[in-house]
Amino acid sequence: MIKDIRHEFVNALEAEDRAIARQLGRQVTVWGFGADAVALDDAELLAGAVRDCVAANNLTVKDEVVSRYQPQGVTIALVLMESHLILNTWPEHGVIQIELFSCRDIDRESLCAILSEKTAASRVYAFDMQ
Amino acid sequence: MIKDIRHEFVNALEAEDRAIARQLGRQVTVWGFGADAVALDDAELLAGAVRDCVAANNLTVKDEVVSRYQPQGVTIALVLMESHLILNTWPEHGVIQIELFSCRDIDRESLCAILSEKTAASRVYAFDMQ
Repeated sequence: MIKDIRHEFVNALEAEDRAIARQLGRQVTVWGFGADAVALDDAELLAGAVRDCVAANNLTVKDEVVSRYQPQGVTIALVLMESHLILNTWPEHGVIQIELFSCRDIDRESLCAILSEKTAASRVYAFDMQ
Repeated sequence: MIKDIRHEFVNALEAEDRAIARQLGRQVTVWGFGADAVALDDAELLAGAVRDCVAANNLTVKDEVVSRYQPQGVTIALVLMESHLILNTWPEHGVIQIELFSCRDIDRESLCAILSEKTAASRVYAFDMQ
């Protein structure tokens, strides 16, 4: 199940600022629930998946940090030439969140595919923030 | 000017997932417009400000990356014991964005204060995502 939600938060800005924000890019957040706890704690698997996704979107990694939590959980921050991607997992709840901010267009399906194919999330929500 | 906007995006989730998401924490995004271009390109100033803000919120930095763009712009990702903070600036547009996701409560005013006091943003918007 993929549920698609659009939050026109840019519309809440004053007209002058809205025009600027629209130039900066696009922000997409995807959430997966009911995911596999082992996959959600596999930092290498997840880092490979987001690096591949970024490359598939023709975005370039500039800096990155892959951070493991004890007893479980992973946070990955990719600083991109075109802005950033951040991934968080909560294996104990079967939850993963990926957020991508980019000054270029984003293939949101490629983010959702990480959730369903790499972590077996059964319920996926995609939030388009702009 | 601080404009306060609440996006109940958690409400868009199915009931089962909403209950889980509410346990994970709180996400706040603040945007500043009309900010000082020199301050927005000062990575040390901004890194100090977000580290102080995180400490003031009783959150702990686990990993971090401070990334400078050419010809201008800064991205800072702080991976926290309690989740993450990410900061982006666009000096050429006078814009700064800070996003904080935390499993603990967040003093949003301390984020807005960075925008108005450190970068002289004249228009500040605070989005509470949950």
